[in-house]
Amino acid sequence: MTGDFDVGKKNEVRQLREKAAYDRETVARILDAGLVAHVSVVQDGEPVVVPMLYGRDGDTLYLHGARKARIVRMLEGSGKACINVTLLDGLVFARSAFASSMNYRSVTVFGQARLVDALDDKERALHVISEHAMPGRRAELRPSHENELKMTGVIAVDIASASAKISTGMPEDEECDLDTPVWGGVLPLELRFTALQPDDLVGDGVEPSEALKAMEGKKL
Amino acid sequence: MTGDFDVGKKNEVRQLREKAAYDRETVARILDAGLVAHVSVVQDGEPVVVPMLYGRDGDTLYLHGARKARIVRMLEGSGKACINVTLLDGLVFARSAFASSMNYRSVTVFGQARLVDALDDKERALHVISEHAMPGRRAELRPSHENELKMTGVIAVDIASASAKISTGMPEDEECDLDTPVWGGVLPLELRFTALQPDDLVGDGVEPSEALKAMEGKKL
Repeated sequence: MTGDFDVGKKNEVRQLREKAAYDRETVARILDAGLVAHVSVVQDGEPVVVPMLYGRDGDTLYLHGARKARIVRMLEGSGKACINVTLLDGLVFARSAFASSMNYRSVTVFGQARLVDALDDKERALHVISEHAMPGRRAELRPSHENELKMTGVIAVDIASASAKISTGMPEDEECDLDTPVWGGVLPLELRFTALQPDDLVGDGVEPSEALKAMEGKKL
Repeated sequence: MTGDFDVGKKNEVRQLREKAAYDRETVARILDAGLVAHVSVVQDGEPVVVPMLYGRDGDTLYLHGARKARIVRMLEGSGKACINVTLLDGLVFARSAFASSMNYRSVTVFGQARLVDALDDKERALHVISEHAMPGRRAELRPSHENELKMTGVIAVDIASASAKISTGMPEDEECDLDTPVWGGVLPLELRFTALQPDDLVGDGVEPSEALKAMEGKKL
């Protein structure tokens, strides 16, 4: 993942252009930081958007769901997908409603969806998704059963174009609003894992792996 | 907001039906808890999804952006919108990859978008959005200038149908996977405001309002 995505009609950022980026490193960093993608497709001429787990391998995003799930069938059938991953980093309190805003990291991807059908390709794609959401976990678990793989629908979206948009920092107020005795600044918002909670079925002496423990307290 | 949304082809939850809800109270609770909506529209026959701030008033969602922003013009032009708000609550570590999942609160809304054009209607809608993201803040700020209102595009989406999907609790493993000496449980994920950070322009003795202070540490 190096170089820039071509900027075209679909992925060009038109508002707040100074916050836009088209380089693969920035796009990949945000995709790798997020956990849920909002995947949109067209069905019968109308828009549908569905939140999905995902994983990235180079310029390809992998998505999964039940093989029979509507979103899997729509992606399989419709082809074109637009996917957004956004992490909210805070509220920006300016001295006017107009200048108030949010801090965020956001990526929008446009691409072609295709069904991943061969069982070994599916397994590889599911590994990518699993490593993204639960790094190291799959190595602890038994291999997937063939019927589990068959019941799982896997979609690959080859990224045709993408853009990132990043907003950070403090309010940018108009000069004329600065004498008002109103507080201005930022209220950060954090998405963070807390502490592992075992279920009632964990056997005596069975501890979470180091990989799982390393996720505790982690900020996305 | 009482009663159920009618269940039809668009909003019926087909996978994990036991996690679905169609009552307005549940839908409203999740919409009111979230901060960013993923708004999808069809443009030139292809899907587009954009993250947007929003606010809810009864069965109407309000969205805003620059008046000239592409998403505002697309919503104005295309009419149909599908909007999802998802809050991720944790990763669910089961003893198989297949049974592993996430905990979440999610709402999907289908509706008709229309431009809000009259300045006083715009102002009311912007108040709804502002109160949703920054409760109490607008009362501290000067009224919007007319040119600010004109530069802001406001869209109302009248909710035609909606569904909620909520997943909570511990892994549901297959019986045959339970003798493996693998840890199982949940790693909660929290979206939380931290502490207010003033900018360099806050005057001596100017403190954040009680409404702002009340947001510190708040979990979404």
